[in-house]
Amino acid sequence: MKKALLFCLLFPALSTQAQQNLVKYVKPIIGTQKMGHTYPGATLPFGSVQLSPDTDTLSYELNGKYNGEVYKYCAGYKYEDKTIVGFSHTHFSGTGHSDLGDFLIMPTQGALKINPGTADAPKSGFRSAFSHKNETAEAGYYKVKLDDHQIQAELTASKRVGMHRYTFPKSADSHLILDLMSGIYNYDDKTVWTYVRVINDSLVTGYRQTNGWARTRTVYFAMSFSKPFKSYGQKNFDKKQVYGGFWRKFDQNNNFPEIAGKRIRMHFDFDTKEQEQVQVKFALSPVSQDNALENMRTEIPGWNFDEVKNQAQTEWNKELNKINIAASEDDKVNFYTAMYHAFINPTTYGDVNGQYKGLDQNAHKADGFTNYTTFSLWDTYRALHPFFNLIQPSRNNDMVKSMMAHYDQSALKMLPIWSHYANDNWCMSGYHSVSVIADAIIKGVYDGDAAKALEACITTANHRNYEGIGKYIDMGYIPAESSGTSVSNTLEYAYDDWCIAQIAKRLGKQEVYNEFIKRSGNWKNVYDKSIGFMRPRLADGSFKKEFDVLSTHGQGFIEGNTWNYSFFVPQDPESLMAAMGGKQKFAARIDSLFTMHLPDEFFADTEDITREGIIGGYVHGNEPAHHVAYLYNWAGQPWKTQERVRMILKMQYKPTPDGLGGNDDCGQMSAWYMFSSLGFYPVSPGSDEYALGSPSVKSASLALEGGKTFAVEAINQSDKNVYVQKVLLNGKILTGNSIKHDDITKGGKLTFYMSSRPVKSSK
Amino acid sequence: MKKALLFCLLFPALSTQAQQNLVKYVKPIIGTQKMGHTYPGATLPFGSVQLSPDTDTLSYELNGKYNGEVYKYCAGYKYEDKTIVGFSHTHFSGTGHSDLGDFLIMPTQGALKINPGTADAPKSGFRSAFSHKNETAEAGYYKVKLDDHQIQAELTASKRVGMHRYTFPKSADSHLILDLMSGIYNYDDKTVWTYVRVINDSLVTGYRQTNGWARTRTVYFAMSFSKPFKSYGQKNFDKKQVYGGFWRKFDQNNNFPEIAGKRIRMHFDFDTKEQEQVQVKFALSPVSQDNALENMRTEIPGWNFDEVKNQAQTEWNKELNKINIAASEDDKVNFYTAMYHAFINPTTYGDVNGQYKGLDQNAHKADGFTNYTTFSLWDTYRALHPFFNLIQPSRNNDMVKSMMAHYDQSALKMLPIWSHYANDNWCMSGYHSVSVIADAIIKGVYDGDAAKALEACITTANHRNYEGIGKYIDMGYIPAESSGTSVSNTLEYAYDDWCIAQIAKRLGKQEVYNEFIKRSGNWKNVYDKSIGFMRPRLADGSFKKEFDVLSTHGQGFIEGNTWNYSFFVPQDPESLMAAMGGKQKFAARIDSLFTMHLPDEFFADTEDITREGIIGGYVHGNEPAHHVAYLYNWAGQPWKTQERVRMILKMQYKPTPDGLGGNDDCGQMSAWYMFSSLGFYPVSPGSDEYALGSPSVKSASLALEGGKTFAVEAINQSDKNVYVQKVLLNGKILTGNSIKHDDITKGGKLTFYMSSRPVKSSK
Repeated sequence: MKKALLFCLLFPALSTQAQQNLVKYVKPIIGTQKMGHTYPGATLPFGSVQLSPDTDTLSYELNGKYNGEVYKYCAGYKYEDKTIVGFSHTHFSGTGHSDLGDFLIMPTQGALKINPGTADAPKSGFRSAFSHKNETAEAGYYKVKLDDHQIQAELTASKRVGMHRYTFPKSADSHLILDLMSGIYNYDDKTVWTYVRVINDSLVTGYRQTNGWARTRTVYFAMSFSKPFKSYGQKNFDKKQVYGGFWRKFDQNNNFPEIAGKRIRMHFDFDTKEQEQVQVKFALSPVSQDNALENMRTEIPGWNFDEVKNQAQTEWNKELNKINIAASEDDKVNFYTAMYHAFINPTTYGDVNGQYKGLDQNAHKADGFTNYTTFSLWDTYRALHPFFNLIQPSRNNDMVKSMMAHYDQSALKMLPIWSHYANDNWCMSGYHSVSVIADAIIKGVYDGDAAKALEACITTANHRNYEGIGKYIDMGYIPAESSGTSVSNTLEYAYDDWCIAQIAKRLGKQEVYNEFIKRSGNWKNVYDKSIGFMRPRLADGSFKKEFDVLSTHGQGFIEGNTWNYSFFVPQDPESLMAAMGGKQKFAARIDSLFTMHLPDEFFADTEDITREGIIGGYVHGNEPAHHVAYLYNWAGQPWKTQERVRMILKMQYKPTPDGLGGNDDCGQMSAWYMFSSLGFYPVSPGSDEYALGSPSVKSASLALEGGKTFAVEAINQSDKNVYVQKVLLNGKILTGNSIKHDDITKGGKLTFYMSSRPVKSSK
Repeated sequence: MKKALLFCLLFPALSTQAQQNLVKYVKPIIGTQKMGHTYPGATLPFGSVQLSPDTDTLSYELNGKYNGEVYKYCAGYKYEDKTIVGFSHTHFSGTGHSDLGDFLIMPTQGALKINPGTADAPKSGFRSAFSHKNETAEAGYYKVKLDDHQIQAELTASKRVGMHRYTFPKSADSHLILDLMSGIYNYDDKTVWTYVRVINDSLVTGYRQTNGWARTRTVYFAMSFSKPFKSYGQKNFDKKQVYGGFWRKFDQNNNFPEIAGKRIRMHFDFDTKEQEQVQVKFALSPVSQDNALENMRTEIPGWNFDEVKNQAQTEWNKELNKINIAASEDDKVNFYTAMYHAFINPTTYGDVNGQYKGLDQNAHKADGFTNYTTFSLWDTYRALHPFFNLIQPSRNNDMVKSMMAHYDQSALKMLPIWSHYANDNWCMSGYHSVSVIADAIIKGVYDGDAAKALEACITTANHRNYEGIGKYIDMGYIPAESSGTSVSNTLEYAYDDWCIAQIAKRLGKQEVYNEFIKRSGNWKNVYDKSIGFMRPRLADGSFKKEFDVLSTHGQGFIEGNTWNYSFFVPQDPESLMAAMGGKQKFAARIDSLFTMHLPDEFFADTEDITREGIIGGYVHGNEPAHHVAYLYNWAGQPWKTQERVRMILKMQYKPTPDGLGGNDDCGQMSAWYMFSSLGFYPVSPGSDEYALGSPSVKSASLALEGGKTFAVEAINQSDKNVYVQKVLLNGKILTGNSIKHDDITKGGKLTFYMSSRPVKSSK
């Protein structure tokens, strides 16, 4: 009795739901081939460190021109590649643009090579051939044999510290390369500055500052070796320094402990016995070398690699157990890998002492929240943040607080657009922070000052000199003359404005509501009735004459064509449907989207769209139409939602390295998968409703933060039984095609009765 | 009675010595012409901000080659120039190498020009012609009329904040340029990164990071305007950025508040009425933008320029009144300007909250001391730090503590060589920190842990891989094969080792004493008896055959010839004299030094030596022989010391812009002047003795920190009466040619009886 009580105190989560070993279903290798842009390395849930192999670090420029191949390397690793260059500590997951790749470490033996070499001639540098048969990628753990060096490499991590274990052969010439020039999406001037101190024979600290996608980004580090190095050195690839005095007084290339420059690679040298393991702990901090050291000493005080790995996988199991599903083994792999991919971003951006670097480049202390970064909001507002509001509400609350801190630190007075590491790169369109904030407020997740949050949303939405907002406010749409993405911007602003209206309504601010609900109708201003599509409109009110409804490029939309974008009125499908001619025509239009053929030439110029991510003309591999399959519900044909959703789940998600049909986009694709497999989806975040679809799981149990459980059961589930006969909520028939957020959070059970035949009569 | 007591409590210094207006004798313009390398702008005693006009900012490179002209601009200002480019906030005083020149501000009116233009075509840019007749330079205050813009510019400062007052004509097109590319000793890649936030219409913060003489130097700032600007903008001179997204979303050139890049100039625009004054406060911090703001708000909360100026001059008067002299007006100008130049470096390097950036690039808090930087130690160990031990002992104590902090933060475990702004540039030779530390310990000034200081000195002196130390230790000298400055290094190490021996003796560490007193005799190993000069010696023990005793270049000495350097055994003139053949020969050798002719060709390649700084063959314009005139004392011919010292005082120091015969070298030249005018000089810092010379003042009163007063009086003083008949200490005849530090610090009076004829019999 006493023992059981103690057990409950230590493991409170276990008292509500039995912990299963779910880590075994996580296959981080999924998405590393073709378009997924995921990385296979080791990280913790929302961890600051993503320690992962890079198979190449191509230059952004090739012969003075943009090197298109570099797009493939957003996550540093391509499954197709034959060599590994090294293991770096920061990676985006699933993005279509990139940065990071900080602090690449490579173990080698034999004559020292200080250049990475090329994929064509790997022996010319320190990179090594490897084989997937000698490779293991698990949640929190990665292992590979480096054939050229006969070194076994193993990686694990705590939240802010990467841990490396390298098993060497016997050699008097073993090395660890620390490449401080390497980076993802690298170019000549990306590394602005590097500073390194070799404090003693097994401890090194420093920082690197880059000017990349994040304009002003500095990462501090502390690096500790389990075995003292016998010697060390650097090679500086900088142009000749004007002030040569530094170099005259010492031999600064060898065993010189104070190093700085723009283009530096270091090496640390060892004698190793047969099968000797040399371990490295590598801690990051956004604030200081001291904080990096403190992170290391707090999170991984010792040298027990296996314990750190076990701890990492225990933490993963704890997170993964928030949903237990019954499903086929493949579906379990898909589901838990999706959950894994959803829970590795945004990332914790702050030290164990709470300090982080703000957008203003000052050090701040996160007061009562964990600070997060890497907000790929154009993607993740759709399903990832709504998923967090359900399964990770505390974290999503902190994410909103992180966005509000960003706003407070912004000289522009703007909420984040696409932010990472104390910068905003303003990538993609809209101001979708407001959607995330609205969803968190409407669903009761945000416990901060809602009135202040509303003010931040309004200020951001009224930033007249940001990407056409002034004209959008004045004219109700962005004229085609002033923007290449005038239509998608107008559509996205209109949706975001609806989100602001929802917050205003909740707070009883009627005037704000009136203003923004009016703005939310602006999509109508770019809808061309004559052709039934959204279309670029000129300042004089006329629609642009030259217009291609298929092309994804140069038609007024960002990364998409009007066939997909014309459905982007998630805030008001009813009105859109009416504009498009009513239910039948609307449903037929969606039918066409899924069944038409989109020839390659129409998306050849859009990196984020490839054949793998397309079903008919529907682009699932990129985000703008992610809600479209659910729109059949509004058209009175929910059975089509059901069959389309099941089809997408099957076609776009596979338990293989090439299993993702498009960039995972920081978890958005994965969040779509989880929602849809559970049978419901947030078509319009900022609303408290989920549209029902067709679950692919046999059953699922959601352990909610408050201690409640919500169950999903699919009776007569099978691959053929994709249609829903009826739905019961807590035993009572559901008459609509939706459930409310509260229905879930107060606990209960949603029962789907599945069938192989569509039920066309019910609604 | 009560009132008087209160007065004493408030102004304790006043209780011992009446405050005079001595600021009027300070002419910061002295040394700005030709070789002095001083700056005329506004600064406080040991202030962090040196706000001063730059008359040019030449590039380090010209047509791909070193631009020799740039050497002239070490202080940013040349009296010979006709135009002013702007006013920047950091300047070295009197150096022969340079850096700094941070944050150049220039007021303009008329059409905006965002380039500085050239001296040949000033109207092509924002620079302006000016005339010395419209220029005033005082301690803590500078004023000039900018002819091309019809703007009166005035500058003053608190310790960490520069204050600008610009009086504009009526104009709808008035501007303040903030040039973030400009710097002293600039070259293309010097500015590593710049970051600026426009917080509101009158407040801007940011930082700039440079890779110059200081390899990794960052200065943070906060800039406040007395009048809101009506608009602002930037021009970015960077190469095209790879990540263009930043620029697409906004007009980032105009009124865009988040700015970053490598090559940026900004402008702030105003409407001005006739004679309208626009003021700027510009605060610096080594640590953060927040600290810069705090420095500003603490030191200059308001906008009263005159009050700030008065406060600055009050602080200067307080410092200057530490010595009151009776002398000719010209001599007073020379003396108090020397004191001014001596008291503007080292500079305070830390914020009002005590934080500073350490050599390890971490933020530190100075615990119980003020942190200082800019240690030009090869120069300043000779007379400046000894002068501080007498007149600024508290500050010198803190300077030693700053050096010890540097040591603690050094991955190399070395005391500073030539350090500034959290960097060491390791310029010049020796490890003269040990001299400063020894002098402070021997004279009872250093109240820190002397044993730890000794350890730091020993560790530094045993740094085998630093500039020949390993060979010096093993062989007793540095062989000529391994260093171009093997002889001067050996001589300087030997002196420094003697300093370490003095500390060891004081602490009773006999073994350390024995080791280092032995090393201090190493000068003998580079003395070539056959020619009677110090001479490069090869590893095989033979002296280098090809050798030129006149040339200052390439002969084994740094910035000097063997004629000067052969006297560099300050720690043991007796033995040197014996080696050189006894008193008569020794004195004859010094005679020759002062009377020989050194043709131009022999020093043409040494920037730091020019004709103006040479008397015969004696180079006063550079440091190595600064003690030589006093060596006659050892040779039994003190009257020659007396006449030579008086001659040097007259010839090398004049109250004119070209009044300094060489680089002031952070106050070393000035400290030589003050000691010598008072009648004594520290020939061998680390000893508690001063050699007596010939005072040039009529009398002087030194207000010492403990409250004691030491007086110097020269009876029968005149320009012709340069010889000392007799000397009385506290009324008693002095029989030797020296006094002890204690003789001064316990208070008392030194009376010189002057005569026009040498007294050759006395010793």
